[in-house]
Parts: sequence; structure tokens; C-alpha cells
Amino acid sequence: MRLRKVKDAFLTLSEDTKYFIINPKDYKGKWNEVFGNHNPIHIEVGCGKGQFMMGLAKHFPEINFIAIEKFDSVLVRTLEKVSTDDIPNLRLVLLDALMLEEVFDHGEVHTIYLNFSDPWPKSRHAKRRLTSSIYLNIYQNLLASDGVICQKTDNRLLFESSLESFSQNGWYLSNISLDLHKTDLFNITTEYEDKWSPKGPIYRLEARTYKNKLNTNKSEE
Amino acid sequence: MRLRKVKDAFLTLSEDTKYFIINPKDYKGKWNEVFGNHNPIHIEVGCGKGQFMMGLAKHFPEINFIAIEKFDSVLVRTLEKVSTDDIPNLRLVLLDALMLEEVFDHGEVHTIYLNFSDPWPKSRHAKRRLTSSIYLNIYQNLLASDGVICQKTDNRLLFESSLESFSQNGWYLSNISLDLHKTDLFNITTEYEDKWSPKGPIYRLEARTYKNKLNTNKSEE
Repeated sequence: MRLRKVKDAFLTLSEDTKYFIINPKDYKGKWNEVFGNHNPIHIEVGCGKGQFMMGLAKHFPEINFIAIEKFDSVLVRTLEKVSTDDIPNLRLVLLDALMLEEVFDHGEVHTIYLNFSDPWPKSRHAKRRLTSSIYLNIYQNLLASDGVICQKTDNRLLFESSLESFSQNGWYLSNISLDLHKTDLFNITTEYEDKWSPKGPIYRLEARTYKNKLNTNKSEE
Repeated sequence: MRLRKVKDAFLTLSEDTKYFIINPKDYKGKWNEVFGNHNPIHIEVGCGKGQFMMGLAKHFPEINFIAIEKFDSVLVRTLEKVSTDDIPNLRLVLLDALMLEEVFDHGEVHTIYLNFSDPWPKSRHAKRRLTSSIYLNIYQNLLASDGVICQKTDNRLLFESSLESFSQNGWYLSNISLDLHKTDLFNITTEYEDKWSPKGPIYRLEARTYKNKLNTNKSEE
């Protein structure tokens, strides 16, 4: 999603004291202090206007949600939407996904959502896709041993590329749907999804790492 | 594909001396003798009426193709089609896929094609799908270290289940297409595909095992 540049977006964000975390690096390894509890942490990388995270946060009050977006002009729209509501288990963070390890400690995140990410359709830009091996290595370092990535997209090329990337980088897949809206899988939609799903199928997958699986098995021994 | 029972199908097959291999177990480990060369061997498990294997065999004369089918009433239709032609690098075998290891030695097969296999849609029949872990273990034992499985299907459930099964059983995926006929990937169609592809997308994948990959790396050291 691309929005027009919003004037003074960062200023507007930083004036909010309830949802926006102005210096997220300060909380690496101690996000539980932000929320005042030890509930699991789920993050969305590229949260767009925030409908998905707001829906999840209301539905699962015992999970802490962090909506992450790299464009301040987008995140300020999320804040507009969120700020009219009272959602104690939700925070907003302005961050490029390449910087995630500076903000979350090893195993600190239980679930990562990737919704309708930029498909970067040209081959020479494939590494910029949020499921390229560069990003999968980062996610692996954040995720708890039983952690999971949930991806959905309507972009065929991105989904094909993601299936290959996960399987080639030591992740295994489950709960795949090649037409999510024709299944009865639990689903909270994004704004983009509401608009575009009538035009074609929504693809969805869950991915977990073998490495984390092995660690889990080891700790269970 | 299901055909009506053909009377004396096996008798008809066994009268053919050019294409039909009446006792395939005799050639385990020595299929090269059947073809009189050491070209790579590709097999199709569930060959239906044979259009796909005939097309491939003509297109790639330096590969040996073995079309495998478990129903004699189906294979006799394949034979009818093949026997009007002269294709020296093609043979037909009547066999249940569960018996593949009795017919092919470790590493004897380079490529396995699974086209429009029975989806066995009920969960309690999931193990019967040709990409369930039972079959993947068998295929792994036949395949050369750089061997590959190529699957295509129009059945969404089967493809979802196959993606999960491959990735959960230590295989990695490549050249995935979620709408094969909209790509420029090389493709020889099956009879079923010609009939049904206008109704919806054809899904395709290639799968290789990590285990075989590791063996390859080891032997390259």
C-alpha cells in the first residue's frame, strides 16, 4: 500500500503517548514491560492502515500485538484509526523490517504476520520481498521455538516465490490455502483484502523453521 | 482417471512385446538393459491414457520413459495409443505405486511425474494421496541424488496437501506455478488437462529432497 506523503506524519505519531512507541530499540528483550504482562507477542510487518491488527487485538485480548510499518505517512493513518478506540494490547512501531533484530530479542516474538506485502515483481528485486532469504534469516532470530509466520497475499508471483523461499531455507509449511475465502479458516481481513478479494483468490500459508523445531525437540528431551 | 473395465485387458497387454513389460521386477537395477543405453530414466506414476509420456518421449529421445499405471483397463488404452507409433525410449508397466521399490533400485530414477493424481478428498483417505509421506519415502529411495518429482494437478486440496507434505517431509520446492497455463514454463499436457484446464488453474511444483541434496554435496567434496 502506498499513501500520499502526509505532512508532519512523524510529529503527529510522536505526539501520541498511548499507542506509538517512539524508541522501540529501548524495549529489546523487555517488551513485556511495555504491556505490563508476559503474554505472547505477535507482530505484523507492514501493517498498512491497521484494520487487521485492530481486529486481532480485540479478538485476542491475551496476546500482545505490535503493528510495524516503515512509512510514517502510512502509520499515521493507522494511528488515526486506532486512537478513536481503546486497545490496551496494541502498539505501533515505525521500523524497516531489516532493523527488526535491533528491536526484538532472540525468541521474543511468537507470531509474525505478513499481509499483502509488496510483491517486487521484477527478478532483480526478488531479495526485497519480505519472504526472501534475507528476511527469513532475520525472522528466525526473533521467533520463539514454536513460533510461526502467517502470510497472506493475492499476488500469485509473490506466493509462488514465498513457498519456494520458505521450503528452500529450512522452513516447513502448514495450513496452506490457495483460496482462503472459500475455506472456513479463521480470518481477519485487511483493508486491501476487503477491496481486492472479489477479484481473485487470496493465498495463505503458515511457516515454521526446522531449526526451531529441532530446538524445541531438544528442550523437550 | 477411471475407465470402464476392459475385458481381457491384461491378456491384451501381455501380447504386446514392444512396449509392455510383463515382469518389471526382473529389471530392478538394470533398466538400462531394457533400453540398451545408460540414458536417465523418468517415470510417470499414474500415466492415464499416455499422451503426456508419449509427448515427452518424442521430445526427449535421450531420456528413457516408463509409464506406470495400476489399472490394466487404463493401461490397455495407453497401449492402444502408443502401439500405432514408434517410440523406442518408452515402456509401459502395470504396477501399484506401493510396489515401486520392487521394480527400481536406489537412485535408478531421475524424475518422477505425478499428474492429476486421485485427490482422495476425505481426510481419512489422506494417506492414499500419491504425495503422502508413505509415498514420499518410497520415491526418495528410487530417486538419484539430483532427482526430482514434478507434480501437476487442478485439484486445490491435493495441491495444498502436497505442498505441506513435501515441506514437512524434508523436500524443498522450486518452479512452483499456481496457474501453469499462464506461464511460459515448458509443458506437455495430459488428456485430462486439455479437457479441464479451461475451468480453472493448473498447479505445478518440483520437489527435491534435502537428504539427496546433502548426499550430492557430500559426493562432490
